[in-house]
Amino acid sequence: MTDTSAHPFDLALQISGGPDSWQGQTSPAYANMVGPFGGITAAALLNPLLLHPERLGDPITLTVNFASAVKPGPFEITTQLMRTNRSTQHWVVTLAQADGIAATATAVFAVRRESWGATDLAFPGPPADAKRFAGDFLPAWTKNYAFHMAGGMEDLFSKDNPTSTTLQTIRDNPPRPLDYLSLAAISDVFFPRIFMRIGQFVPAGTVAFTVYFHADAAALAANGDAAVIGHARANRFHNRYFDQSAEIWTASGNLLATSTQIVYYKA
Amino acid sequence: MTDTSAHPFDLALQISGGPDSWQGQTSPAYANMVGPFGGITAAALLNPLLLHPERLGDPITLTVNFASAVKPGPFEITTQLMRTNRSTQHWVVTLAQADGIAATATAVFAVRRESWGATDLAFPGPPADAKRFAGDFLPAWTKNYAFHMAGGMEDLFSKDNPTSTTLQTIRDNPPRPLDYLSLAAISDVFFPRIFMRIGQFVPAGTVAFTVYFHADAAALAANGDAAVIGHARANRFHNRYFDQSAEIWTASGNLLATSTQIVYYKA
Repeated sequence: MTDTSAHPFDLALQISGGPDSWQGQTSPAYANMVGPFGGITAAALLNPLLLHPERLGDPITLTVNFASAVKPGPFEITTQLMRTNRSTQHWVVTLAQADGIAATATAVFAVRRESWGATDLAFPGPPADAKRFAGDFLPAWTKNYAFHMAGGMEDLFSKDNPTSTTLQTIRDNPPRPLDYLSLAAISDVFFPRIFMRIGQFVPAGTVAFTVYFHADAAALAANGDAAVIGHARANRFHNRYFDQSAEIWTASGNLLATSTQIVYYKA
Repeated sequence: MTDTSAHPFDLALQISGGPDSWQGQTSPAYANMVGPFGGITAAALLNPLLLHPERLGDPITLTVNFASAVKPGPFEITTQLMRTNRSTQHWVVTLAQADGIAATATAVFAVRRESWGATDLAFPGPPADAKRFAGDFLPAWTKNYAFHMAGGMEDLFSKDNPTSTTLQTIRDNPPRPLDYLSLAAISDVFFPRIFMRIGQFVPAGTVAFTVYFHADAAALAANGDAAVIGHARANRFHNRYFDQSAEIWTASGNLLATSTQIVYYKA
């Protein structure tokens, strides 16, 4: 049965099977330049863990290694529970296609309890003078998000940009209540920093991606389908690999997730 | 045959077997408060990949999930090559003991080629007024490192520290030429930020750790056994989990590695 009212994000994540072996297929709506948007693959790898009958608590971290471009068509996701402790749980997940493993992931889930807390990272605030960032030259997946970015597109792709930092708002398009799946995907929406740093599109692709979830169920519910704020920057570009880090905040300054990734580039 | 002149770090990493199944044992010299120092476990998981006959290129990233405290005694490390592409390779590694899986890791190796490059992150410089940071109250593993830290110990553990940031020099003790194994371990030497942030030792342990290697063989050789500079800070402490990020630089400002980790704490 097809629910035609479902969000493209949920349609893209539809899987059957379980609990440790699932079948799904790529969604043209989330196509990137080569293979799908990495964020939808990250969500696809997290999804069977959230659905798993032995799941304990909520996701604390997810690391995805992109072993190969996912080809258009069917894939199989296999989950393996490596260890369950009193309040934490460790998983290994693989996504395979006919030609082999396309992605692996590890995840930690935990039951969180109240404790002393503080946010040391400074809230960057909402982007000033933010303009809608969109365009037909961008890959299909970007149409499922609304981005508003400080400075806008012209600034972003100016040659010899002294910085690779961007500050933007992000929400699913159409709006969709934030959950762990969309938060994982949103943590990967930041274009490879090499594009803005050298002012042109060059071959680039994420090799590995890690997200730490600070959001608990209450924080997700409080955000609802409101836009979140994303702040991203590169650290070092060196001999075909660079790393970039990013944070996702609510509009009111609640740090929902931090993420890092290492990206292949040719320049 | 025991080489009594070998460095404690190399002695701790001695394994037998291969190429996909290795036996090793914990080293009392790298004991932490509970189980071994996480950095030695990270190096132990990377080691069989560096030794593997099918290894392609150098490590680009390593993620370690600490599923359980490693118990004193023997362990078995199993490596699994998930995919080899033209210039990249993806691995899954597990460390098991009699009671089950104690750690899992994923790693990406790659053949690096020359390219355009830049370091966007600002070099923090060497720590000013650095004092040796050591003490009998610290766990055994710290004796295998020499740390010199800005501000010293009194500043570090003052109550209600407004910052969890530290800047320090780090080298193996006795000195040992830097390689991927020691760089992985050094990326994990930063005490859980909760200690300095609230000014006391509380139960805390790394749950997952990721390192991105920017150093290639030439950079490692250029550093030799000189001390490196480590810069670390927390992002957010929330309901028993916090994340911290850190960078390892040479004294001359070459960014060798960036790392992040998510840490359990009770406070």
